[in-house]
Amino acid sequence: MTAPLSPENPLVRTLRDLHRAEGRRHAGAVLVEGRRAIDGFLAGAWVCDLILTPTDQDPPDTWPAHLCRHVSPKAIARLSQTKTPSGWFARFLLPKPEPLDPQRGGLVLVGVGDPGNVGTLIRSAAAFACPQVVCIGGADPFGHKVIQASAGALCQTRLSIHPAACGPELLAGAALTALVVKGGHAAESLPRRPRWLVVGSEAEGLDAAWTAACSEHITLPMARTSESLNAAVAGSIACYLLRQSW
Amino acid sequence: MTAPLSPENPLVRTLRDLHRAEGRRHAGAVLVEGRRAIDGFLAGAWVCDLILTPTDQDPPDTWPAHLCRHVSPKAIARLSQTKTPSGWFARFLLPKPEPLDPQRGGLVLVGVGDPGNVGTLIRSAAAFACPQVVCIGGADPFGHKVIQASAGALCQTRLSIHPAACGPELLAGAALTALVVKGGHAAESLPRRPRWLVVGSEAEGLDAAWTAACSEHITLPMARTSESLNAAVAGSIACYLLRQSW
Repeated sequence: MTAPLSPENPLVRTLRDLHRAEGRRHAGAVLVEGRRAIDGFLAGAWVCDLILTPTDQDPPDTWPAHLCRHVSPKAIARLSQTKTPSGWFARFLLPKPEPLDPQRGGLVLVGVGDPGNVGTLIRSAAAFACPQVVCIGGADPFGHKVIQASAGALCQTRLSIHPAACGPELLAGAALTALVVKGGHAAESLPRRPRWLVVGSEAEGLDAAWTAACSEHITLPMARTSESLNAAVAGSIACYLLRQSW
Repeated sequence: MTAPLSPENPLVRTLRDLHRAEGRRHAGAVLVEGRRAIDGFLAGAWVCDLILTPTDQDPPDTWPAHLCRHVSPKAIARLSQTKTPSGWFARFLLPKPEPLDPQRGGLVLVGVGDPGNVGTLIRSAAAFACPQVVCIGGADPFGHKVIQASAGALCQTRLSIHPAACGPELLAGAALTALVVKGGHAAESLPRRPRWLVVGSEAEGLDAAWTAACSEHITLPMARTSESLNAAVAGSIACYLLRQSW
């Protein structure tokens, strides 16, 4: 390896640009932090072009050694987005978006704002073989916290990203199933066929246009004393129950 | 209301003691932060004896006005455990622990270390009418992050707390069902009867003693390409699937 990356190296600035959505879009790349997260991403299909490791640690033998270089403690502090930086970073190139296949179904997140929820839902979708995830508004799916929560699932997922104003006409003609807090059917009662599970924002749920566009509504049965489930948990249970739609 | 609570007021120190597990145990109380979290706890069975609100905001009419006082911005900064303090705090007295009912079943968390996961699992357990939750080692269920993630469910839950060394003899004679990453049966195939769902630590799962004590093992079916689910999500799906055990 060459000398450890110093905080003054222009590469540090280039990598810090990936902390912002605009910088990621411009560079067509994301920065993944943490050894375990990097492991998950290396196992996926995205192309890695740079790995940084702390000066006192060498990368595992299974990692591409020619992409690795050490990084100084001061540069780690500048690059990290966590409270307790591990000193492991990797840059991955974003793949070209694949076209949406409305008839095949999948998961739609409409305005899900918490990045931990978005990452956890993408992780659950991947676990239950969901073929594609559509994000409409909400947290940027390539942000740091989404990447961490997705635990590598992000790069196994066919992802389609749209602005908050995008309405259900995006999936015109496809079967849409809304997850709603009350009044819906049991997920187990739905016929087996391709469909989109539509999950709304944590605070407000789905807006009128999306609700009206969904021909099916499901609700998880809950104890009367309970106000609600965590949004990522509710969406993940629905993914589990509808996994045979995919 | 009286003058806003200043940072020098001895009460601030008393409340800060509730940030630590030992301080909570000694005082027999917890500090709940954030308006929505306080709302959730006020709806439960725990006794509240103090509420602090920012000087520019009054509490909702439904809150007990005689318990409320304003708190100065500097005192807020000293009391808060969040990055962006809301300035709303409430102290709740911990109820006397109720005796465990081994034959009725419930949820057992063995060494679940992440407080967000513990809180989310307690929230899911409450949503699916789980009658009791046993915590063995792992994150202190009365810590700040557990309280936030439980969203008020903590005070609807019959909770039994034990040290990490506590083994399955605690529930001797009861039916124990382990959630395991692979090799278990489908949860849907189990007979309907009272049982304990046993969830192990995020990193290591269940130890040999707990695994051996469980007469049933369940596994969630997952796509081959997927490494795993988020621990709170996996445990919550299992709670959903076994809800008729309770």
